[in-house]
Amino acid sequence: MKIAIYGYGNLGRGVETGIAHNPDLELVGIFTRRPPESVKAQTGVPVYAAERAEDFAGQIDVMILCGGSATDLPEMTPEMARHFNVVDSFDTHARIPEHFDRVDRAAFQTGHTALISGGWDPGLFSLARLYMNAVMPEGRDYTFWGRGVSQGHSDAIRRIPGVLDARQYTVPVAEAVEQVKAGKQPELSTRQKHLRECYVVVAENADREEIARTIREMPNYFADYDTTVTFITEEEMKRDHSALPHGGEVIRSGSTSEGTRHVMDFSLKLDSNPEFTGSVLLACARAVGKMHARGIFGCHTVFDVAPADLSPLPPEELRKKLL
Amino acid sequence: MKIAIYGYGNLGRGVETGIAHNPDLELVGIFTRRPPESVKAQTGVPVYAAERAEDFAGQIDVMILCGGSATDLPEMTPEMARHFNVVDSFDTHARIPEHFDRVDRAAFQTGHTALISGGWDPGLFSLARLYMNAVMPEGRDYTFWGRGVSQGHSDAIRRIPGVLDARQYTVPVAEAVEQVKAGKQPELSTRQKHLRECYVVVAENADREEIARTIREMPNYFADYDTTVTFITEEEMKRDHSALPHGGEVIRSGSTSEGTRHVMDFSLKLDSNPEFTGSVLLACARAVGKMHARGIFGCHTVFDVAPADLSPLPPEELRKKLL
Repeated sequence: MKIAIYGYGNLGRGVETGIAHNPDLELVGIFTRRPPESVKAQTGVPVYAAERAEDFAGQIDVMILCGGSATDLPEMTPEMARHFNVVDSFDTHARIPEHFDRVDRAAFQTGHTALISGGWDPGLFSLARLYMNAVMPEGRDYTFWGRGVSQGHSDAIRRIPGVLDARQYTVPVAEAVEQVKAGKQPELSTRQKHLRECYVVVAENADREEIARTIREMPNYFADYDTTVTFITEEEMKRDHSALPHGGEVIRSGSTSEGTRHVMDFSLKLDSNPEFTGSVLLACARAVGKMHARGIFGCHTVFDVAPADLSPLPPEELRKKLL
Repeated sequence: MKIAIYGYGNLGRGVETGIAHNPDLELVGIFTRRPPESVKAQTGVPVYAAERAEDFAGQIDVMILCGGSATDLPEMTPEMARHFNVVDSFDTHARIPEHFDRVDRAAFQTGHTALISGGWDPGLFSLARLYMNAVMPEGRDYTFWGRGVSQGHSDAIRRIPGVLDARQYTVPVAEAVEQVKAGKQPELSTRQKHLRECYVVVAENADREEIARTIREMPNYFADYDTTVTFITEEEMKRDHSALPHGGEVIRSGSTSEGTRHVMDFSLKLDSNPEFTGSVLLACARAVGKMHARGIFGCHTVFDVAPADLSPLPPEELRKKLL
């Protein structure tokens, strides 16, 4: 199956890295909005200008779109779905219905197959929530994120005057997680669920007090959380915070009858968020390719994909080895 | 959707209990191989003789088969699949391919839809293994069971002369689980993965030493494990060991590139194995009903079911609430 990557940032590189572990998938090209001659692919695969993508229609089985959810994907996915089968990792939860509809129309009209919101949340965590709710209707869901780097929160800190660099870790509150795992179904405020740890490099003459206060009081991002701010040097940032780990946990506890308690728990601990997400997108691309071959067009999410379609193994082997 | 239960033991009662939490499903009857007048359903639903089941063809959307895997289901599922859409929890892993083929033929020839091996293992744990393998091809899987009651092992002890009652708990070895969760990918022997705890009630004049030795040396069941045997009274058995808790954990650790390590973990802690399993079978029955309505006949497993089909919610609502 011929795969191409559209957008060559952290996620695009993660997809590229994952290809090596999927012998049934072949990476045939990378499309970038930067000047292609300025971009060197890790794997030596050809790099093309994004605006030339359409010329490759018919030569690529699935295009994996690695743009951002804020401004790239809302345009990119419907546009590309007119020419290719596509996969994206659109993660602006509130705008998923609208994004779905636009991609569905574009893909359906042109006989293409699309999957949006692949990755781990949305993605694997969504699947955990759906399965858990379906098999135990009476209960309560919790999702914890971290410990991991939030790019959005790191960026928000970087926009403060005097800040040179920043890394924000989202950290689940251990006591809250323990209570939930014990099946206690606590009522938890935003503050009781996650902490925010900020590591910040500032300019020499910057007012650290003021910057720390600005971070802690930033609405939406930090004001509702217990937030720690630690000032570090550029060298410390590079040495201790250049990886992009992440993870989290979906827990549902509930009952099937008076007095019974059941707890289901799905967790991820990831050394590299973009590499893992890229690896999930490759499995989604495989499913999209299979569905397209069966004439299943339009937009889908992981909820619509039979799990077997994500795997390279034939159904008989899956039943024998993994059932 | 009209549901019926075929076989009214622990699992059948578990399915019956679960119906209350699934307002879109209606339990219309229970079929038993015992004299139906001797059986009183918990919910007051009508109880019929198993041999009359065929008379109800056309009046039941999905029949949930709650027989045992050793001797009941290999006959029962293909036979019932000629007259009904069916769901079973067949769990003899080695015989799944053969069972699948027989059920597939029966269901396909008569235009019915079947799902075999529903439940949590096989079932939810199989799904965890499949998703984890698909999204991270490079890695290693581990499955731990327990702490929970193994009916098969309890029965094996009960067959020893002098034993009046027995309950066997399968217990994962904590150090092994910790190593696996830390992503260490240890090589683990059978003994290093699980312990077996046995609680045994014996006749007054029984030779306890001899019984304990017989248990510990029993091939397949106990010889390969560290096994503890505790003799208790009938009262203690009733007071402390009448529930049927179970659970377990599927863990896959692996990497996407040199030096990265990712750990995925799905765990269940269940107060009542038969009630939870019954609840899973109800979600499977819903999916079977939907697939049948779409003209998808023959035999399937959870691997072939789009997750959305397990849920009573429409796709738009799933995308909005759970994605």
